[in-house]
Amino acid sequence: MAVNLLPPDRRALAPVHGVELGVAMAGIRKAGRRDLLLVRLAPGSRVAGVFTRNRFCAAPVTVTKQHLASGAEIRALLVNTGNANAGTGADGIARARACCERVAAALGCEAREVLPFSTGVIMEPLPVERIAGGLPACVADLREDNWVAAAESIMTTDTVPKASGRSLELDGRRVNAAGIAKGAGMIRPDMATMLGFVATDAAVAPDALDRLVREIADETFNCISVDGDTSTNDAFVLVATGRAGNPPAAIGSAAYAGLRDALAGVAAVLAQAIVRDGEGATKFITVRVEGGASRDECRSVAYAIAHSPLVKTAFFASDPNLGRLLAAIGNAGIRDLDVDRVSLYLDDVLVAAGGGRHPAYREEDGQRVMRQAEITVRVVLGRGEARSTVWTCDLSHEYVTINAEYRT
Amino acid sequence: MAVNLLPPDRRALAPVHGVELGVAMAGIRKAGRRDLLLVRLAPGSRVAGVFTRNRFCAAPVTVTKQHLASGAEIRALLVNTGNANAGTGADGIARARACCERVAAALGCEAREVLPFSTGVIMEPLPVERIAGGLPACVADLREDNWVAAAESIMTTDTVPKASGRSLELDGRRVNAAGIAKGAGMIRPDMATMLGFVATDAAVAPDALDRLVREIADETFNCISVDGDTSTNDAFVLVATGRAGNPPAAIGSAAYAGLRDALAGVAAVLAQAIVRDGEGATKFITVRVEGGASRDECRSVAYAIAHSPLVKTAFFASDPNLGRLLAAIGNAGIRDLDVDRVSLYLDDVLVAAGGGRHPAYREEDGQRVMRQAEITVRVVLGRGEARSTVWTCDLSHEYVTINAEYRT
Repeated sequence: MAVNLLPPDRRALAPVHGVELGVAMAGIRKAGRRDLLLVRLAPGSRVAGVFTRNRFCAAPVTVTKQHLASGAEIRALLVNTGNANAGTGADGIARARACCERVAAALGCEAREVLPFSTGVIMEPLPVERIAGGLPACVADLREDNWVAAAESIMTTDTVPKASGRSLELDGRRVNAAGIAKGAGMIRPDMATMLGFVATDAAVAPDALDRLVREIADETFNCISVDGDTSTNDAFVLVATGRAGNPPAAIGSAAYAGLRDALAGVAAVLAQAIVRDGEGATKFITVRVEGGASRDECRSVAYAIAHSPLVKTAFFASDPNLGRLLAAIGNAGIRDLDVDRVSLYLDDVLVAAGGGRHPAYREEDGQRVMRQAEITVRVVLGRGEARSTVWTCDLSHEYVTINAEYRT
Repeated sequence: MAVNLLPPDRRALAPVHGVELGVAMAGIRKAGRRDLLLVRLAPGSRVAGVFTRNRFCAAPVTVTKQHLASGAEIRALLVNTGNANAGTGADGIARARACCERVAAALGCEAREVLPFSTGVIMEPLPVERIAGGLPACVADLREDNWVAAAESIMTTDTVPKASGRSLELDGRRVNAAGIAKGAGMIRPDMATMLGFVATDAAVAPDALDRLVREIADETFNCISVDGDTSTNDAFVLVATGRAGNPPAAIGSAAYAGLRDALAGVAAVLAQAIVRDGEGATKFITVRVEGGASRDECRSVAYAIAHSPLVKTAFFASDPNLGRLLAAIGNAGIRDLDVDRVSLYLDDVLVAAGGGRHPAYREEDGQRVMRQAEITVRVVLGRGEARSTVWTCDLSHEYVTINAEYRT
């Protein structure tokens, strides 16, 4: 059902020097599927991340944040599907730590140098022994040209693996970047999406990576929504191995800007891929809100549209029932919104202005756009210069089917 | 599909003296269905209302608020289905006023003594002439024992008409109260639900009715959600004709309290009926949040649960995938929530405590409750004494079908 989303092209995914990936079938929830990913990072790599703000934050997220805060040099990431290790209390923390210890023993590093990530069913105990049992196969599989298998290994209800890569010149050195993500449901990132990992072999200055991960999340993973539910396990992690040999990119430099654009490009492809492969999605919808007094209010309007079940079902039906868009705009919480100054466009079709339907709007024009698989909703608020874009999908029967049957 | 909802019992709906109702088939959107309701109020009646906070507030809501604010003695309400007259700009206001003028001419009163209400498709011009054409039949049909027909005439995607009545003694006088409502979709009232009208023949003191309508809305219509979308046309109106002959009930008196309880009882039945007949509903879910630091935060948690598509599809599937409830609680925006102090119950079954699944919880107990048509989710936050209750329903295939095909 994914909307205009092809499997990743291996040839566009150049190895990121210093990042080896290995996958295994550990039988965590179901047998016969890749469900475990180990990423080994070369010494000297820097790692930064942004994480869910859900108060029922999953145990691996808590442990990952502790390990990053400890200042340890991160040497490995471990990702399992099939079990989120969320809503598991103190026992969940102990199980996440046990996994780090098993990885440390396998790779010859310390447990606090390992970052654990989990995705899957909430409130079930994590099967540590099955995960440990899969580690030797992961280690045997470690290699730099393994991004597509890595993308496949973190899929849950995703129908298409999500990987993206770019290369650029940085101060005369060739730099590679690649990333993978998983999504599908419980997608309304507050800091980052379910699981997104982007790595580069560029060198970056000590304080630059934290800034980069926040800037990139804010304009990519933080701009998508499938169903408005923020996951307990959201994590977006950025890795820089420094193996490309460029001078460390410092904040404010041209190299920083170039690297930022390349990494944001990788992240944007992954974030949009999550929406294209959103549970039950049949349409990919870009909601662009302009002319706001602040970016926050533009984002509120965009999310009011992206989260409205009535708007989403109208897109599913290709029905230009566009009054629902006006109702959503009116619900965005802007108390002093002057609706007479609001304009609404569907692609290039002016639908509403002056508080109601535009005189030149014709139903057949709206119908033509609504039939497309990719649609841009553009709202001009008439209050200022700020703008914001959110990517979302429609709400279909398939979404209900997938989520009614998720555990069976 | 309505959950445990029977058609109203005519015998429980005693006439409210001073309130006459007449309905007609005006062919507003489709032929052959009752789509127009006229309510005539006896001289001396008091009317108060609460209305949507959607900024794309419908034209009839704007006109109704103006007429109430003018201090005019309200003599009639006019309600049409099939067209919401929302997102219609200045032309919509003119059409709403034209309808009031036609009613005034038919009843021999002034246009500002008429309150107009509309429900139906947004952003289409209101067919004033069809409405005017239906008025003579409405006038001919006016009578006090016509509440069930009135409830039928304001249905849109509702499958069951919604009416409720009560009688009580007030200072030695028999007082009757009755009400009707419509709902089904775009239901997340911010001030009141789509359309709710409750009338009594009690006399009330001049300032008491405004207080009553707010108090009652706050604990009934403002506590429900079907799909989290706040309508452009929400209105809850309370009428007191004074024909029962009791001394006017003043704020703070025993009579006020008695009347308040009776009217809130009528409104609660109607509000819950809207959820029971929510679009595609197969389950009626009471979300009770206790132990909060404030009522607002309890309500935030209750709505986070009631609005989560993942929670709602799990209820539809009767699947005790209860980690989704924890995730929703964690998303309610309480930044300092200590999840270790949160307890989660499904009816009488303790599901989670101490940040995770309770050791005594058994899947078959959760499964037993999830199979029921009526379920109470109880969350104890462990932060204080405040509480709040929200009523909602599940999210089914039928919801998608209804809203994908609404205009066809």
